[in-house]
Amino acid sequence: MKMIEKGVCAAKGFKANGVHCGIRKNKSKKDLSLIYSEVRARSAAVYTTNLVKGAPLIVTKDHLADNMAQAIICNSGNANTCNTDGIEMADKVCRLTADELKLEKEDVLVASTGVIGLPLSIEPFEQGIPGLVAGLGDYSDRAAEAIMTTDTRPKEVAVSFDIDGIECRIGGIAKGSGMIEPNMATLLVFLTTDCAISTDLLQKALSNVTEKTFNMVSVDGDTSTNDMAIIMANGMAGNKEIDKEGPAFDSFVKALYKVNLDLAKMVAADGEGASKLIECKVAGALTEADAKLAAKAVINSPLVKTMIFGSDANFGRVLCALGYSGVKLDPERIDLSFKSKAGQVEVCKAGYGLDFSEDLAKAVLSEDEIGIDINLNQGQAEAVAWGCDLTYDYVKINGDYRT
Amino acid sequence: MKMIEKGVCAAKGFKANGVHCGIRKNKSKKDLSLIYSEVRARSAAVYTTNLVKGAPLIVTKDHLADNMAQAIICNSGNANTCNTDGIEMADKVCRLTADELKLEKEDVLVASTGVIGLPLSIEPFEQGIPGLVAGLGDYSDRAAEAIMTTDTRPKEVAVSFDIDGIECRIGGIAKGSGMIEPNMATLLVFLTTDCAISTDLLQKALSNVTEKTFNMVSVDGDTSTNDMAIIMANGMAGNKEIDKEGPAFDSFVKALYKVNLDLAKMVAADGEGASKLIECKVAGALTEADAKLAAKAVINSPLVKTMIFGSDANFGRVLCALGYSGVKLDPERIDLSFKSKAGQVEVCKAGYGLDFSEDLAKAVLSEDEIGIDINLNQGQAEAVAWGCDLTYDYVKINGDYRT
Repeated sequence: MKMIEKGVCAAKGFKANGVHCGIRKNKSKKDLSLIYSEVRARSAAVYTTNLVKGAPLIVTKDHLADNMAQAIICNSGNANTCNTDGIEMADKVCRLTADELKLEKEDVLVASTGVIGLPLSIEPFEQGIPGLVAGLGDYSDRAAEAIMTTDTRPKEVAVSFDIDGIECRIGGIAKGSGMIEPNMATLLVFLTTDCAISTDLLQKALSNVTEKTFNMVSVDGDTSTNDMAIIMANGMAGNKEIDKEGPAFDSFVKALYKVNLDLAKMVAADGEGASKLIECKVAGALTEADAKLAAKAVINSPLVKTMIFGSDANFGRVLCALGYSGVKLDPERIDLSFKSKAGQVEVCKAGYGLDFSEDLAKAVLSEDEIGIDINLNQGQAEAVAWGCDLTYDYVKINGDYRT
Repeated sequence: MKMIEKGVCAAKGFKANGVHCGIRKNKSKKDLSLIYSEVRARSAAVYTTNLVKGAPLIVTKDHLADNMAQAIICNSGNANTCNTDGIEMADKVCRLTADELKLEKEDVLVASTGVIGLPLSIEPFEQGIPGLVAGLGDYSDRAAEAIMTTDTRPKEVAVSFDIDGIECRIGGIAKGSGMIEPNMATLLVFLTTDCAISTDLLQKALSNVTEKTFNMVSVDGDTSTNDMAIIMANGMAGNKEIDKEGPAFDSFVKALYKVNLDLAKMVAADGEGASKLIECKVAGALTEADAKLAAKAVINSPLVKTMIFGSDANFGRVLCALGYSGVKLDPERIDLSFKSKAGQVEVCKAGYGLDFSEDLAKAVLSEDEIGIDINLNQGQAEAVAWGCDLTYDYVKINGDYRT
């Protein structure tokens, strides 16, 4: 497997584009994104578990009933959620896109991200879609930019890998930033691959990999109404279709994991207002579910997040989060250390504080990627979760998001 | 029932005091608090559910084995948690206090609040306790001040009420501010009453009232390791002992509820960095458990909290929090409005946004006590939770708490 360029356009037969069509007032900010496959592609998706769901998710789920799709259209600036005409609007967006691409409406999937409860007008789509389609090309970067909300940078990853001597590719783009605690689903992630793979295995790979990547990211504990990850597999690489589990499927899953892992870490590092990426590893848990629960409690604690922002080794807050996480644990077995490029500092052994160097701890926590390593010393299971620090800018961004 | 002065000294036979003894470096900040009853008092307590527990809780639980106590000693500045000699130190603090008061060590309860994992030295207690005891008097205010950490103001409440023509009193002090999501227990709350009541009913009243007051407050979703509420009932009012449920017990519970409710709201309003109190009422739930879960999800959402800070009626965030709360609900039945002294604004009806006045919404949300009124329109159960906004000051206070 190797890292390659071009995001969602890396796989054969995929084109993309992103434009400003007028959903946002700021003309310098792209707000409409399109990903297109030259042929119909087997497709799979995972969705938010939030009971309040955006209208686009309902339309996309409906259009995916046959597990086939050929295009994904996504706008930013408006979530099209909690609007009385939301489904009608999402359906119209699919129809406009399909007409322009000469496809069936059911082969177009739709996503939206932005303010919830703001009526969505169809005019910007009518004006923007023709140019968006006409300009389709090798523009994963434009598509990645057009789905951004408070993200500060576009997020693209692609890898190539080998199936029985045939080179295949998986690429993806994502948007994250706020309202991020994906739960059995994700933020917005669009993935493309030219690998030939059966529908069942495509769904299985996406669901399993999502569990260990996007579902282990949290910026603020708020599970969005519009989370969704979609993968389109158009089979154009020419490999023999992967139709059973085995080495070829493993290679596919490994490649998909790498793409999603990198996107997930980019989302955490670019969380709203974030200045630091936090990677919390919990080892020695009785079960993987326990390890995940513990790692996410630490990642989500506002007191841990502000402590990392302030580079203050106030490790009692990590123990406190573990204690209320819901995981059965023996406090007197917990080992804890902080690490980063600047080194590693053990701060707690068997539940009690160590006499550590405050200077070293400060140096370790002043880096921009911080590891929190925990061993519960109770079993063999482990998990990793990613988050970010809580800063003045998070408050600033969210105190006045709409206006 | 009427509101009266003097907090924990309002009830007959109780004295209190607070001093600076040197646990904190800042000499102008009191750090040691004592509440004393002239006679042994029936006592009850509730404790944090955090599995990582402060040493003082373990010692207090042990000393309460006979449900009797005569004094509560509490220091701020150090939580005495995750220290290898924590229990030994908490025990020594009780012994020093008991010696000075000429009591049995087992009649002294102990609490600590402050930094976790910092060794606690006994010297400040040895120096401070004699003066603390010598100065005992009508000083609930000093005791309330000495237990504060990042609280900006002391919290005292007292009421008088009538049992069979005899006037009884309940008073309390509390500290809150950060690491506040009491869970089947509370922050630090010390309550005194001169009402004669059996041990079982005292515990029952405290546990039940805590469920609807302190357990419905959240500042940051972090359940502390040192949460504890204690009540001492010395019987000095002279009423016939309440030994069964009925009108007298109901009067006692009503008075205790009022004291705890007011303290709980004071804690929420004075949450770390808070500029506004948020009261979220959820009606129309299928069960009370559902109503509580929903109200706490709203109160805890960082996006709702920052929205209130910014006076921005971004109501989709409230719907989003309801959607991921874990409560079974039909999004298309949710009604939502914001209210305050400035008026009330309906923003959402049956799950869809209304065309409300942004000017009115801004005015409503610019007050310092904000109500979020939700009707799930599914059943008859309701609950209220209290929290505060998330501000720059929360980040400032917690980015650098230890140093």
